[in-house]
Amino acid sequence: MSVRAKHQSDIEIAQASKLKPINEIAELIGLKQEDIELYGPYKAKITYEAMSQMKDVKNGKLVLVTSINPTPAGEGKSTVTVGLGDAFNLLGEKAMIAMREPSLGPTMGMKGGATGGGYAQVLPMEDINLHFTGDIHAITTANNALSALIDNHIHQGNALGIDARRITWKRSIDMNDRALRQVVIGLGGPVQGVPREDGFDITVASEIMAVLCLSKDLQDLKKRLSSMVIGYKYDRTPVTVKDLGVEGALTLLLKDALKPNLVQTIEHTPALIHGGPFANIAHGCNSVMATNAALKLSDIVVTEAGFGADLGAEKFLNIKTRALGAHPDAVVLVATVRALKMHGGQSKGDLNTEDLQALEKGLQNLKKHMETLEKFGVPFVIAINRFITDTDLELNALQKWCEDQGVAVSLTEVWEHGGKGGLDLAQKVLKIIDKHENHFNHFNHLYNEETSIEEKIKTIAINVYGAKNVEFSVKAKKQLNEIDKFEWAHLPVCMAKTQYSLSDDAKNLGRPEDFIITIRELRPKIGAGFIVALTGEVMTMPGLPSQPAAYQMDVDEQGKAIGLF
Amino acid sequence: MSVRAKHQSDIEIAQASKLKPINEIAELIGLKQEDIELYGPYKAKITYEAMSQMKDVKNGKLVLVTSINPTPAGEGKSTVTVGLGDAFNLLGEKAMIAMREPSLGPTMGMKGGATGGGYAQVLPMEDINLHFTGDIHAITTANNALSALIDNHIHQGNALGIDARRITWKRSIDMNDRALRQVVIGLGGPVQGVPREDGFDITVASEIMAVLCLSKDLQDLKKRLSSMVIGYKYDRTPVTVKDLGVEGALTLLLKDALKPNLVQTIEHTPALIHGGPFANIAHGCNSVMATNAALKLSDIVVTEAGFGADLGAEKFLNIKTRALGAHPDAVVLVATVRALKMHGGQSKGDLNTEDLQALEKGLQNLKKHMETLEKFGVPFVIAINRFITDTDLELNALQKWCEDQGVAVSLTEVWEHGGKGGLDLAQKVLKIIDKHENHFNHFNHLYNEETSIEEKIKTIAINVYGAKNVEFSVKAKKQLNEIDKFEWAHLPVCMAKTQYSLSDDAKNLGRPEDFIITIRELRPKIGAGFIVALTGEVMTMPGLPSQPAAYQMDVDEQGKAIGLF
Repeated sequence: MSVRAKHQSDIEIAQASKLKPINEIAELIGLKQEDIELYGPYKAKITYEAMSQMKDVKNGKLVLVTSINPTPAGEGKSTVTVGLGDAFNLLGEKAMIAMREPSLGPTMGMKGGATGGGYAQVLPMEDINLHFTGDIHAITTANNALSALIDNHIHQGNALGIDARRITWKRSIDMNDRALRQVVIGLGGPVQGVPREDGFDITVASEIMAVLCLSKDLQDLKKRLSSMVIGYKYDRTPVTVKDLGVEGALTLLLKDALKPNLVQTIEHTPALIHGGPFANIAHGCNSVMATNAALKLSDIVVTEAGFGADLGAEKFLNIKTRALGAHPDAVVLVATVRALKMHGGQSKGDLNTEDLQALEKGLQNLKKHMETLEKFGVPFVIAINRFITDTDLELNALQKWCEDQGVAVSLTEVWEHGGKGGLDLAQKVLKIIDKHENHFNHFNHLYNEETSIEEKIKTIAINVYGAKNVEFSVKAKKQLNEIDKFEWAHLPVCMAKTQYSLSDDAKNLGRPEDFIITIRELRPKIGAGFIVALTGEVMTMPGLPSQPAAYQMDVDEQGKAIGLF
Repeated sequence: MSVRAKHQSDIEIAQASKLKPINEIAELIGLKQEDIELYGPYKAKITYEAMSQMKDVKNGKLVLVTSINPTPAGEGKSTVTVGLGDAFNLLGEKAMIAMREPSLGPTMGMKGGATGGGYAQVLPMEDINLHFTGDIHAITTANNALSALIDNHIHQGNALGIDARRITWKRSIDMNDRALRQVVIGLGGPVQGVPREDGFDITVASEIMAVLCLSKDLQDLKKRLSSMVIGYKYDRTPVTVKDLGVEGALTLLLKDALKPNLVQTIEHTPALIHGGPFANIAHGCNSVMATNAALKLSDIVVTEAGFGADLGAEKFLNIKTRALGAHPDAVVLVATVRALKMHGGQSKGDLNTEDLQALEKGLQNLKKHMETLEKFGVPFVIAINRFITDTDLELNALQKWCEDQGVAVSLTEVWEHGGKGGLDLAQKVLKIIDKHENHFNHFNHLYNEETSIEEKIKTIAINVYGAKNVEFSVKAKKQLNEIDKFEWAHLPVCMAKTQYSLSDDAKNLGRPEDFIITIRELRPKIGAGFIVALTGEVMTMPGLPSQPAAYQMDVDEQGKAIGLF
């Protein structure tokens, strides 16, 4: 954030903030002491009893924050999410935030947390970015317990006839560890098990993370875990967790991880930080449990979805809404002058230089996402997340463009001013919610469940990405047949595509046209309840850079984190 | 525990127990609200501030619970530890318990927790046996962050010249997973790193677990982590964590895991459950931080060490006491009629049948451990952990034998009666502590730091195991020279030997004589601060059985654990 005016780092601002005891935050939203389980003074989980007691409460309003296609220039979607929640509270609304919890692995690699920034952060940021309440560790454990139980089943005689060459379930670890991408396990002779190829995904790419995030209660979690496909038998039929009989053990390992985590922002807005699946191989949204709890506990909930509107918002609207049983009353589409200029062709090194031409060209990326949101029938506001390097001419051009399009736009400065910097945005969001309220609710999914997988993919590629057409590899075509055969075709589609471009080519910025989307492979995630369609190499295990952030990390004598971000 | 009179399982007894809020337990031992960090209503960590405030308080008395060589018949050492703590409190003493925290991995495999049994349990047993407060997950994470950073260092150019064939640092996972014992990683071409052989240990076998358990504060933890040797360079000199520059990051990952965990027994005796290293590849005792806190917070502390007195107690007395700066005021040596009969030759299937001859013969195992404790100069009481199948004749014979030896003995029934079943034992322990108090303190280590590693090993093998002599393999001899060269010879020795026999042959029960101990390999654990001497194959990654306990596990609709034990 070196382009910002202030020179305090996120962790310095966070550590200088005075938190309220989390019981006080819980009280604010009507939770009693027995409704929460404390994890230290500033974190708590909401109990199942409390969740079931609020079951029949009327939902508050839901605001989804999404963005243009991300660039290395940064969009600050999480920062806007937090700042908008704070702004609603300043306006006297009873607001909450529902966000994803970050994976620990990447914090060891690159600087940059996932808890907002500047004066729009959720706290305690060190805890949230490290072990937090242990949810991701529990998911890692459940994932690898399943792996151990699969290999043990084979080692002990393989009664199910699992084809070790066709096990699709991979091990996982919450670490950036490229050396574990492709491994051979079970070496050392008969006593060490059956040798086979395997690999580790980062935990947030585990199907269990997606399952946890889409489950509406403990029984639903168990049902989804039961139906996860771990591979295929010698007769090519699928093997599920239920076949192995270990859904109870996996559920037991996740019994606390499923409970939403309550924390607060710097301005003491209550925030539920829970679940964090990838937005390519999975659906990229925080948990249904947390969003649902927030909708019951407040009048207005601000949530976000991963990457740009082509990935995160599309999946929120087509996948998560089905599990949640609710949809956004308004969407905030975040853009920055810097990122738009990159979409318009300006190089990263030149971003501090005014370039109205690049800006104008880059606006086509924003335009495409606006069209997508219109197709879903959800009203939206554009939020311009202001950076100190933005020139007046650039900001004016951007605002004028939005006005010409007839869409609401707001310049936000939540990074520097917290909620105060988001008051205008909050007011504009409230306005479109009110307007929306008086009209017929226009929200619609882009496809019905009965549509074939092939058609669902085409619908997304053509309508959301702007592709001319979709091609399927030989492998993908074969898999489409299998999906029909195993009766999985009613499931929604979860697209795995680069986040940087609307197309499947990361370098193709702006608003690409006349391109073809190629589906290379399909991966059925029956527990999560979607079919992943891969449009290219999808990285499910990041590596560390040459100078990992870990080199700067330390703890002072009082146990305070140093160099985390 | 099918041989017991009562038919309730441990988990049924545990779940029927009414716990007190952990703040009340904390208050009992003089801890204020700000001295603890809650993890739900029944678990808490003690803050560093509280730890440093109690620094100058005079220590209470320390009682170490150990046993004869374990057999499949079960000795109930943890149960006696818990019951004895409860009994002290019934007698009006201000007592605490300090025990190891169990590894989650093995609970997926075989039934049987590590939190005591019957009415002598620490609670909440489900939490303690599953994720607890996340300590072991933090250790796994730190262990694997180090692995990822090592492989990344090599991938990014290997400036240190690490010989990938001589990396001794292994990855770890808290799971019984035999397929991960020997693996090849880094496959898939240049982008995925450098292929090499590796393996996973169960987390409790990680050197980081031993480091955490022997550290006296956060700075000591960091110093120990810095000096861990992860392998060797091409020039055959050792590479440390400090060379990689990642000790700060590892310390940061462990900053909460180092804080002792406060829980309670069924009878509300305060218990610190913290740290759980293996008792073969490591020293098998709970953390120095926890034992030390308990000594400050109470008048009498009951703690235990892993396996029999030849392993756990020897290491407690030769290794842990040096880090702790304190030693036991009394030892309780646990035996059962059933286990003694197995040591005397009775087969497991016949244990319900009276056999005075087998009992008498088996007593030689007990006798050897008594001699060991005498060599350390610590007074002890024999605790006979009573089972329903023990006959009067057997119990009488056992008591008479102890009296003939001139040692205090007590029949305990803590499994069935909790603290009440251990009152006699508690009184006898208090008596020897008082007697001891009036005499010169006889405790001594069995060897000085200046003694060579070879001599240290011989001292233990001959004096504790009763071996005739020690032989060193060619490899071990070479390693002894390296240890001298790298100036590690001042460290204590940590013996890795089968727990079932005094010898290095697991089948050689009772009191073997005229045997040779063979040292096959030495493993320097410089961070932990000891040299591991391996006498045979030591299992550092267990496997799952043909019918894993996981098959029986489940959760009910309220999130309550089913089938855990």
